[in-house]
Amino acid sequence: MKKHHVVIIGGGFGGLHAALAFKKEKNVKVTLIDRRNFHLFQPLLYQVATGGLSPGDIASPLRAVFTNQKNTQVVMGEVIRIDVDDRMVVLRDTVISYDTLIVATGVAHSYFGHDEWSQWAPGLKTIEDATEMRRRIFVAFESAEREDDPELRRQWLNFVIVGGGPTGVELAGAVSELAYHTLVNDFRTIDPKETRIVLAEGAPRLLPPYPEELSKNAEDVLTRRGVEVKTNTFVTDVQQHQVTMKCGDDSETFPTRTVLWAAGVKASPMGKLLADRAGAELDKIGRVKVNPDLTVPGHPEIMVLGDLANCPDKDGNPLPGVAPVAMQQGDYAADLITARVRGEAVKPFRYVDRGAMAVIGRNEAVAHLYGWRVTGFFAWLIWLFVHILNLIEYDNRLLVAVQWAWNYFTRNRGARLITHQPNLILRQPKNEEDWKRMHEESPELINR
Amino acid sequence: MKKHHVVIIGGGFGGLHAALAFKKEKNVKVTLIDRRNFHLFQPLLYQVATGGLSPGDIASPLRAVFTNQKNTQVVMGEVIRIDVDDRMVVLRDTVISYDTLIVATGVAHSYFGHDEWSQWAPGLKTIEDATEMRRRIFVAFESAEREDDPELRRQWLNFVIVGGGPTGVELAGAVSELAYHTLVNDFRTIDPKETRIVLAEGAPRLLPPYPEELSKNAEDVLTRRGVEVKTNTFVTDVQQHQVTMKCGDDSETFPTRTVLWAAGVKASPMGKLLADRAGAELDKIGRVKVNPDLTVPGHPEIMVLGDLANCPDKDGNPLPGVAPVAMQQGDYAADLITARVRGEAVKPFRYVDRGAMAVIGRNEAVAHLYGWRVTGFFAWLIWLFVHILNLIEYDNRLLVAVQWAWNYFTRNRGARLITHQPNLILRQPKNEEDWKRMHEESPELINR
Repeated sequence: MKKHHVVIIGGGFGGLHAALAFKKEKNVKVTLIDRRNFHLFQPLLYQVATGGLSPGDIASPLRAVFTNQKNTQVVMGEVIRIDVDDRMVVLRDTVISYDTLIVATGVAHSYFGHDEWSQWAPGLKTIEDATEMRRRIFVAFESAEREDDPELRRQWLNFVIVGGGPTGVELAGAVSELAYHTLVNDFRTIDPKETRIVLAEGAPRLLPPYPEELSKNAEDVLTRRGVEVKTNTFVTDVQQHQVTMKCGDDSETFPTRTVLWAAGVKASPMGKLLADRAGAELDKIGRVKVNPDLTVPGHPEIMVLGDLANCPDKDGNPLPGVAPVAMQQGDYAADLITARVRGEAVKPFRYVDRGAMAVIGRNEAVAHLYGWRVTGFFAWLIWLFVHILNLIEYDNRLLVAVQWAWNYFTRNRGARLITHQPNLILRQPKNEEDWKRMHEESPELINR
Repeated sequence: MKKHHVVIIGGGFGGLHAALAFKKEKNVKVTLIDRRNFHLFQPLLYQVATGGLSPGDIASPLRAVFTNQKNTQVVMGEVIRIDVDDRMVVLRDTVISYDTLIVATGVAHSYFGHDEWSQWAPGLKTIEDATEMRRRIFVAFESAEREDDPELRRQWLNFVIVGGGPTGVELAGAVSELAYHTLVNDFRTIDPKETRIVLAEGAPRLLPPYPEELSKNAEDVLTRRGVEVKTNTFVTDVQQHQVTMKCGDDSETFPTRTVLWAAGVKASPMGKLLADRAGAELDKIGRVKVNPDLTVPGHPEIMVLGDLANCPDKDGNPLPGVAPVAMQQGDYAADLITARVRGEAVKPFRYVDRGAMAVIGRNEAVAHLYGWRVTGFFAWLIWLFVHILNLIEYDNRLLVAVQWAWNYFTRNRGARLITHQPNLILRQPKNEEDWKRMHEESPELINR
């Protein structure tokens, strides 16, 4: 009997869990396509961005994950087209036909129509994003140390984090830990305690989808740790040396060289591709509206899952773009396909919401689990435990546990390397003449 | 009393150990200048290049190292000039005056006048070099998996390592471990066991400065592990898809896409700068010929140490460019300066040669210690112990020990990430028309 061929595009939480769930299926063969050769544990990316963990600690080579799952082939490549009529996925140099297609390519960050902000406000979705954010954070302290002009020094020591969801909260907590503890004795000219950290969120409170009590707790803890939390605040402009924020009718310009973007998302271009080729309907951020069984309307052989899917919960609101949703959808997709191969029916997907959590920093987290609201040290322990447990490979778990234990007791962050473009200019030119002089001396060192 | 100001350029083994040796000196203040914000443990760079360790594991942030050494200031910056008469080091944006200057900026790799080879044969001196080498090694296997043409596939599965010193031997052993063990079940189309690994060395034997018996052992072990060792062999040409090697009158062209360069070195440009400004004499690879007390002739206030120094041993031959020499010279420089400040004299530098070692792979190393020759498992244990012990920070030691233990028992290499330019083309275009088509489809993906 010919095996049912499932092609999965995207090795994130959704795609990976779908592929893993086929482990014992003898009648199915799986091809997992990803542009990268590793699965990335995105919830801990902020730790790489702040020097707490190394990229390798939170990345699992896909081939290592599937080395013993013989029904699964990993293909490193980029999909450029889907041929829906012939059921074929077109890569640059090859074509792969499918019986069922699972698309799980996730989301990228979005600048609400201001893509020009991206040069000053890097986002956090890939390993390269994280090492670039890390570079900017540590270059800011190095530049402040080298700057005599008190105003420019202030720019370097001011940080703005845009977006008060879990990533923004986690970044703000980590930068606070860095500035007020880890780096506190490291400099001779500046005092890192002069660092100002602003966290801007457009909604009336941090962590908008969480219970209000937890939002309040997160705000209190961050404030106590020196973060200036600004709610009801929208960023209206980002430039190299300042951010403009609006709160009600007030507009404020805040001098800063380092803006960390943890705000909007937009769907991966695969959504558009499915709209063009399979007539899928997209929501306003480009996610694919799927049937209750995660298939694309009119195409029972195409499923979309994870962040790329707009899948309504029982109240009709789209499910949040978090790892547990993607993981459950991955498992569901495998169940559905297996059942179909056997000629059985399956109920619509239903998300089992065990809760949500966000870490704020050392000994502090907020968690909403099975209806319970937990804060402080206990929530932090749960957060640690759940995150270590959910890492894909045993060696990642071991390494993260060891590093965290070390960082906890020493408050050190040993992975704070400035890599790629390390020679970027530290002191900014003061005027055009200054710039010219610097440029002539060593043109390759001028920052873009 | 005004403190004696020592300025050190370069935070490698020499500069770092000099700065650390001033720890308790109350009459000295130290400024350590480096372009990077971390000290790099270069002897383990080959582990990063082959996915065994992460960059953060072998890098120590300089500010963390000196956080409690209050007489030492770390400056991240690049020296563009030395003003010998006024005793000033000129950085782009500032000027630092010194009483004594220590220059320890090391060496870069050299292509024997064929810089055009660098695009096809990356060297291994920086973190970025290592992650680029890692990218190429793992892209080669991925590309082979995607290639139908048997000849092109063979190109991807052939590896050439140029240079049979410790780095070349260590790289060859690690690639052998990867191909014949770690990756052996990871692919579905290719068999990684078909990998060919050629190690080319110009001298008549591997590890030329070691006792002959150890060279012989290294060659035997590597051969047993599938490496084709070619001695008396010089590389005469490197192209995108082949390497030409010459042995005696025979010339051979070997098809390969992956050439790892572990051969020549040339001194850092600071050597030339010292020649121009301080009249220093350079040897043929640009190292500074120093007095027996490591000072530059005619300039007792300028010392050169580590790989940048050409310092004769007791037989008049230059000391080898290895970490123990640099570390001892760093300690010596601090002693000399401290003695001078006190008005005391110090004997010339004398290298205490405790020996040398190179690891070949799992359970195998060669070591020449205090006149003893050790091979096999015992040498490997010593190698492990010495390397972990010499890592600068405790957290590095802990992380490396944990990863090595894990890698040893599982034969896994968890840090095998393809990062930066991950989307480079995997399949090479077959002809110009093919190239055009691929280029039109997605121009950003074409490899340089």
